[in-house]
Amino acid sequence: MTPVTPRLRPITRYSESGAEETTDELVEEAPVEFRLDGVPIAVLMRTPGDDENLGLGFALTEGIVLNPGEVAGINRVEGSAEGDRYDIILADGVRVDPEQFRRNMFTSSSCGVCGKASIDAVRVTARTLPEGPVLDTELLRSLPAAMQASQTMFERTGSVHGAAAFTPRGELLGIAEDVGRHNAVDKLVGSLSGDRWPLTGLVLVVSGRLSFEMVQKAAVAGMPIIAGVSGASSLAVELGEELGMTVIGFLRDDGFNLYCGKNRIG
Amino acid sequence: MTPVTPRLRPITRYSESGAEETTDELVEEAPVEFRLDGVPIAVLMRTPGDDENLGLGFALTEGIVLNPGEVAGINRVEGSAEGDRYDIILADGVRVDPEQFRRNMFTSSSCGVCGKASIDAVRVTARTLPEGPVLDTELLRSLPAAMQASQTMFERTGSVHGAAAFTPRGELLGIAEDVGRHNAVDKLVGSLSGDRWPLTGLVLVVSGRLSFEMVQKAAVAGMPIIAGVSGASSLAVELGEELGMTVIGFLRDDGFNLYCGKNRIG
Repeated sequence: MTPVTPRLRPITRYSESGAEETTDELVEEAPVEFRLDGVPIAVLMRTPGDDENLGLGFALTEGIVLNPGEVAGINRVEGSAEGDRYDIILADGVRVDPEQFRRNMFTSSSCGVCGKASIDAVRVTARTLPEGPVLDTELLRSLPAAMQASQTMFERTGSVHGAAAFTPRGELLGIAEDVGRHNAVDKLVGSLSGDRWPLTGLVLVVSGRLSFEMVQKAAVAGMPIIAGVSGASSLAVELGEELGMTVIGFLRDDGFNLYCGKNRIG
Repeated sequence: MTPVTPRLRPITRYSESGAEETTDELVEEAPVEFRLDGVPIAVLMRTPGDDENLGLGFALTEGIVLNPGEVAGINRVEGSAEGDRYDIILADGVRVDPEQFRRNMFTSSSCGVCGKASIDAVRVTARTLPEGPVLDTELLRSLPAAMQASQTMFERTGSVHGAAAFTPRGELLGIAEDVGRHNAVDKLVGSLSGDRWPLTGLVLVVSGRLSFEMVQKAAVAGMPIIAGVSGASSLAVELGEELGMTVIGFLRDDGFNLYCGKNRIG
């Protein structure tokens, strides 16, 4: 993935001993527009870099396309500046049903707006996940440290989200960082999807909280285990349970909370 | 504000000494749809409760309306379940320009998608903030603890965002909690806007990172000082600087980083 450079900025650091002029590295944030075959579909506030993977991952985890083969390419829109606008070009013969797309984006007036309806909408693209893999508890507890060791931007800015994919044996397959939690997952999924799809059998570790949409993205990508270093929302756990996933919160080196999917903990 | 009850759920707690069946309180998350005079405009994933304030705050901080007087009421849509759908009813004679509204939502194809264009879009509704107030550094450092002491849901779930408004003398005027950072700010703004508008002279303290949209919401609400317990993005600081705001990151009891607006630190 493209390395992302934080922005260096003069700041004043106030501490108990007074004020000091210094510099700090800030995570960059800027909007990017994605189009689908020429039609604008989303503007995301994201950390620049890895934009093609972000677009591909977004299209996959939001259920706009069902697999990477349905995307012929992610092209910079002619005449737009670097990183400003990208067009997701569908492969020959691929048709996207706008109704289904909108339902997955939770922005249509026709979509139900209770938790049950949201879960049903995700079921359109996410199947119940097959059993396995089974993970050792000690290995699981080691994953946040392994992720953070590879988070170059977090180390420098102290303020960016990370998403990492591990094999059941603890090998780090990929990592992405972004100012947005969802974007980090989408960049990761986009970058991995070229080699395998769905991402069955992998463990997704994220630096923040587990909301409904985070579990949705893991489910649609086929990742059966999602673990966050912070807690989960009620609806996130309900969705994971419904789809047979393993959902873990407060994952730290001394333990974790298992919300559902005990069958994958060995 | 309506007290929000976390969901109690059975979990398995894994620690170095083994696994234990116990219960945990999870922050609730569910979608809510907002309409503007009958037209669906947004579905937000939020923590149920305080929905009228969320709708009012959202309409204000996204620049859909310019002041609380432009909203005649936030009504539950007839036939919808409690907390599912609300209609933001505009006051007599108020017309919302859809183009401007869309621009502020960053979802229109006609909006520019560079940082500069985003800043320009916010300038439509947020004026440069007047000078003052000036805050004592020691008082500033005490605010996160004061906020957390009032965060009833955080204490119970360990996993929810908070937003609090303080006077320059450190009095807590209001606090809101939500699974979403933006929602917490919108609920807070909505709840305070009945008594005063804009929220000039107040300090906004938030539990998470400062992204562009967080600073945007503070700016549009008229709050000149925004402080987060984590860091800020580059674009968030650029927007704050452009509008003459004071932007503070890593606010802890032992110090903080000042990105811009030193004139308000005394």
